[in-house]
Amino acid sequence: MHFSLRLTVTGLMAGMIAASAIAQDVKPDRAIKYRQGVMGAIGWHFGILGSMAKGDRAYDKDVPRRSATFVQELSHMPWDGFVAGSDKGAPTKAEPAIWKEPAKFKEHQDALMTATPKLVAAANTGDVAQLRAAVGTVGKACKECHDDFREK
Amino acid sequence: MHFSLRLTVTGLMAGMIAASAIAQDVKPDRAIKYRQGVMGAIGWHFGILGSMAKGDRAYDKDVPRRSATFVQELSHMPWDGFVAGSDKGAPTKAEPAIWKEPAKFKEHQDALMTATPKLVAAANTGDVAQLRAAVGTVGKACKECHDDFREK
Repeated sequence: MHFSLRLTVTGLMAGMIAASAIAQDVKPDRAIKYRQGVMGAIGWHFGILGSMAKGDRAYDKDVPRRSATFVQELSHMPWDGFVAGSDKGAPTKAEPAIWKEPAKFKEHQDALMTATPKLVAAANTGDVAQLRAAVGTVGKACKECHDDFREK
Repeated sequence: MHFSLRLTVTGLMAGMIAASAIAQDVKPDRAIKYRQGVMGAIGWHFGILGSMAKGDRAYDKDVPRRSATFVQELSHMPWDGFVAGSDKGAPTKAEPAIWKEPAKFKEHQDALMTATPKLVAAANTGDVAQLRAAVGTVGKACKECHDDFREK
């Protein structure tokens, strides 16, 4: 298992989805659970940011700073879990298109990873209008990928 | 929900578990799912590190560097999910003692968060013996907390 994980991670770092036999002994259910856990953590912190950005709560700059940092860090992590063969094996909303259009999937990943440092920068300003704009950009990156690659 | 989340996060940053009514409108099942997702992601990357540290696979320094960085980042995140009232609400192995002995729980958190930057430093050396030692220290921090606060 670990050998294939190692190669898979290396492949992803090079911007590729490992689609060959090397990833096939990573148990798909583990990979699915991993990526869902990371995505869920992103959702948790992005929810906090959204709530503050919308002004639902009084602005407290330490909170969005913390959650934005976590979202930025987490935005690099889910992709390792989209190993070949993990389109099934546990309940998942990941569309098979992910493994058929790796270049397009990678573009969406990059859009998110490019947007999240700007989210941190916006949170660090302590200005709610800047936070709101950055939350909008990150949310757009989430949505565009989900529209293409996540089951409705 | 968001108001209590905000206060809970602030409380955790100050090294305290929010044990009062302010956290009680965060849905326990969401909090449980959040912390389990983060812990699962730590386990995924720590498994990769353990495998390389043990020499099960040829050493490739980029891989432990990447996973160690993720483990370090993730080591700050699970605690936000241990909100008051989330000792139940979904299947969880979290022992009720977590909410009864917050100071002790915080000591364990700190032990992990202190060990993980050393894991990154060790991974960055590219020396497997140093990685092995750091993996041992982090693993010990995991185990000591699980022994005290996670159901067998």
